[in-house]
Amino acid sequence: MDFLSDFFTLFLGKLQSPTLGFLIGGMVVAALNSRLAIPDAIYKFIVFMLLIKVGLSGGIAIRNANLAQMLLPAVFAVITGMLIVFIGRYTLAKLPGVKVVDAIATAGLFGAVSGSTLAAGITVLESEGITYEPWAAALYPFMDIPALVTAIVVASVYVSKQKSLKNQESLSKEESLSKEPVAAGEYPTTRQEYRNQQRITAQGYPSQEPERVKIWPIVQESLQGSALSALLLGIALGILTQPESVYESFFDPLFRGLLSILMLVMGMEATARLGELRKVGQWYALYAFVAPLLHGFIAFGLGMIAHYATGFSAGGVVLLAVIAASSSDISGPPTLRAGIPSANPSAYIGSSTAVGTPIALAVGIPLFIGLAQAVMGG
Amino acid sequence: MDFLSDFFTLFLGKLQSPTLGFLIGGMVVAALNSRLAIPDAIYKFIVFMLLIKVGLSGGIAIRNANLAQMLLPAVFAVITGMLIVFIGRYTLAKLPGVKVVDAIATAGLFGAVSGSTLAAGITVLESEGITYEPWAAALYPFMDIPALVTAIVVASVYVSKQKSLKNQESLSKEESLSKEPVAAGEYPTTRQEYRNQQRITAQGYPSQEPERVKIWPIVQESLQGSALSALLLGIALGILTQPESVYESFFDPLFRGLLSILMLVMGMEATARLGELRKVGQWYALYAFVAPLLHGFIAFGLGMIAHYATGFSAGGVVLLAVIAASSSDISGPPTLRAGIPSANPSAYIGSSTAVGTPIALAVGIPLFIGLAQAVMGG
Amino acid sequence: MDFLSDFFTLFLGKLQSPTLGFLIGGMVVAALNSRLAIPDAIYKFIVFMLLIKVGLSGGIAIRNANLAQMLLPAVFAVITGMLIVFIGRYTLAKLPGVKVVDAIATAGLFGAVSGSTLAAGITVLESEGITYEPWAAALYPFMDIPALVTAIVVASVYVSKQKSLKNQESLSKEESLSKEPVAAGEYPTTRQEYRNQQRITAQGYPSQEPERVKIWPIVQESLQGSALSALLLGIALGILTQPESVYESFFDPLFRGLLSILMLVMGMEATARLGELRKVGQWYALYAFVAPLLHGFIAFGLGMIAHYATGFSAGGVVLLAVIAASSSDISGPPTLRAGIPSANPSAYIGSSTAVGTPIALAVGIPLFIGLAQAVMGG
Repeated sequence: MDFLSDFFTLFLGKLQSPTLGFLIGGMVVAALNSRLAIPDAIYKFIVFMLLIKVGLSGGIAIRNANLAQMLLPAVFAVITGMLIVFIGRYTLAKLPGVKVVDAIATAGLFGAVSGSTLAAGITVLESEGITYEPWAAALYPFMDIPALVTAIVVASVYVSKQKSLKNQESLSKEESLSKEPVAAGEYPTTRQEYRNQQRITAQGYPSQEPERVKIWPIVQESLQGSALSALLLGIALGILTQPESVYESFFDPLFRGLLSILMLVMGMEATARLGELRKVGQWYALYAFVAPLLHGFIAFGLGMIAHYATGFSAGGVVLLAVIAASSSDISGPPTLRAGIPSANPSAYIGSSTAVGTPIALAVGIPLFIGLAQAVMGG
Repeated sequence: MDFLSDFFTLFLGKLQSPTLGFLIGGMVVAALNSRLAIPDAIYKFIVFMLLIKVGLSGGIAIRNANLAQMLLPAVFAVITGMLIVFIGRYTLAKLPGVKVVDAIATAGLFGAVSGSTLAAGITVLESEGITYEPWAAALYPFMDIPALVTAIVVASVYVSKQKSLKNQESLSKEESLSKEPVAAGEYPTTRQEYRNQQRITAQGYPSQEPERVKIWPIVQESLQGSALSALLLGIALGILTQPESVYESFFDPLFRGLLSILMLVMGMEATARLGELRKVGQWYALYAFVAPLLHGFIAFGLGMIAHYATGFSAGGVVLLAVIAASSSDISGPPTLRAGIPSANPSAYIGSSTAVGTPIALAVGIPLFIGLAQAVMGG
Repeated sequence: MDFLSDFFTLFLGKLQSPTLGFLIGGMVVAALNSRLAIPDAIYKFIVFMLLIKVGLSGGIAIRNANLAQMLLPAVFAVITGMLIVFIGRYTLAKLPGVKVVDAIATAGLFGAVSGSTLAAGITVLESEGITYEPWAAALYPFMDIPALVTAIVVASVYVSKQKSLKNQESLSKEESLSKEPVAAGEYPTTRQEYRNQQRITAQGYPSQEPERVKIWPIVQESLQGSALSALLLGIALGILTQPESVYESFFDPLFRGLLSILMLVMGMEATARLGELRKVGQWYALYAFVAPLLHGFIAFGLGMIAHYATGFSAGGVVLLAVIAASSSDISGPPTLRAGIPSANPSAYIGSSTAVGTPIALAVGIPLFIGLAQAVMGG
């Protein structure tokens, strides 16, 4: 009972969060046929600002981390982040009616990390008097960024393969594209242009290479796209320069506000695509319920290895599991929106905000702490 | 004498305010044929940011207000806000040479509320030891927003009727539009587009419906326009979600700066239209001198009814009168610029800032306090 | 040894500054063929924001300064600022292979003032117990703005003369423009448009006036350009109104962040033009090494005249010399980017940040203080 009431309190609180509020607001505005619009130049700049900020904060965290000591947990974090995407690719994406790009984006979001879930985990650990390494929180970019990059690259590879297949089957181009208007790695200049671009790319695609899609050029193409470029530029600047002053005075304070406007745009675009989800909503709900705990257990297991191999603390193992259980409400949406523009935002944001995050907070955190105390006597 | 010197000090202080400074700066820049320009995407986004902020702050104030207790004064505030627009419509707009849309916009601005005038009123009340309900200041959105919405809708209806009339008289379209280039409810994508849009709308207008303009479709059209959509979205988010964090960290701190840039744009556009006002400036000055006191008296009278009916305090009655006497320097200009783009900003901003606000501050506040003490012994 | 190690510490610290970090980041991103781009409307708005801020801060400093007392030093500051540009025009610009517009822009940047170098000078003076007039720091806009305006006007005049010469020699237009794609006084709407504009201007230029270019219309044209318009508008608003509230809450806090994004854009554009500098890099290094000390000595000499004529303090003379020795990392880049768009940013920013500023800090400040103590017994 207590669990259920906690869960619903959290759930209702989430619905009142400005992030989700702006998303729903955008959906309502679009449903009422309002002519409200955010200019495209502004939209692109907001995405750039958000991605640079996510990269900078990750880079700064990595620079300030004790890399030698945290090597093994960091490697495990990277592995978990990438694994989560592949788990989603071969479970959620295989469910009947679920679109593959939507599933990959959702898995990317569940691999990415929520700063607020992590903060909640730290708060509970401290109130319970469980010690953990001070650098344990800095493990988050090691899971967050690999998960997002993996999701974008996997989506790109999938899209390219689909195109190749379709060219082979010599479907009419118009038909194939209206069925699967999919791109990855680049946010389009305008939504109009985006469709044109797709058409041109599809036409220009070499039809004489029917069996295999070369993966490396697609990875390179993804990394050169504006989404991952901005993210990686931010990381590089965070590691190599000292952008703290400009980060703290500019990129960080503007972040929440710009995110709320992005949410509004995503909400306006989501209205038209809500129908796509009607038949498969239950699969997303199931995934969002199971995934946080599954991901947390995987990270917990890997953390245990580090515990016995290098003395990684029990509190650190819990934090690694919480990082894995969390799904991003911050770095994920703008990165995936820009990196996998064809994925339906209502799928991944809805799954994460409405189900995944409450589960991670209300079930995950107490579960992993109990488990750590049972197993390691933390 | 004291009154006059107070008045002139306030008047000079107002001229040095950054808001008016940027407006005049824009006018001078345009008069000197500078090629300085604010990109259209930026202009549209600034208007969006300002309207969302105005809506959010109104919505938050309504959510935090004690609605049961303040019901009657809130209804009176709504009535006063709407009434002010109709008073302007049937006085200022009827004066010789005054353009109707300019008059409606000016009345909308005088119906809207100035936060700083309200703050001045509260300060004087407190220094005089007069008590008032803590929620009395939260009456402002109940007058502010109805006044602006009413002005935009009344202007839309007027413009539609004019077009209908002109089509009937079968004036050449080019001629009619150069005489009255008027639109309402939507801010145009570019100023160029705006003119084209007008032409298309005018041509497409059904000429077989000559006598009556249907009002409800125009109201709906106004509400779906980007200006009122943004405003109403902000109010809804302010009431239904908890946007305080993003409001305080993003929308509110950016407001004054973005407003100054909007003022610059409005100044640049006003230069070309100053000539329109030369012959009718005295009517705006007269209106701006009389209106704050007239509006204040109306609200004072309605407040008295609430005083005797539900025990609304004398201090509360004074604040309601001050709210009615004030004319908006904050929510009004961006809303009217976007909602009634054909109105001349130099008319309404000039009237309010140069005459209306000093009158409300220097004459209105002491007058209403004296009146309250005389009538209610507050 | 100490001097060299100080110098290298400063040099390395500079390379880690976010400003230079974003510049280099932009160069790397472009070199890796990323599709990252900042929308043009955003770029233009950022330039506008930066220039208004530079103007406002100069205007506020002038308004708050004691103009009567500081008249002679202020006149000397103006003279020094303009002189520095002409020195660059007749030394650096005459060196083999150096492009004239690049040299003028570099001289403009060395004439402009670095707030951080000035702050370092003030800190050293205070730690040594040397007194100076409190208004001495307010001398900076009197050198900063004349230097930038002079550089933009001198570049405009040069470009016009070149075009006139070329028309005379009836070179093919295409050829001449690809050799010297040069404009001044206006930042182009898009980079594409900019090239088109140039072409149109070149074609429209009267070929019947071959010997003399009239200078006054070019000065007027420069002042009407968006760059100098924004700068002068900011100064006027800073002097005539009281924009402190909006300056401190909006323009100032956003400055560093927007500058970092401008640096990114400039870096992306610089990559393609690095080759231009390969053959002449040593001339820029030489200029950047000598210029700060030469400019400092000129200002020191003029300051001495004020010292003997009006009792300008020895500390004030040192600050005037430091102001002259510094090269702008703040006001300069955006102003020159917008005012002399044809100049290569890698030339002027590289010279100033990598060599000029470390020299001014590590050599200039101690040198001028020692000199003042030796000459005036400060």
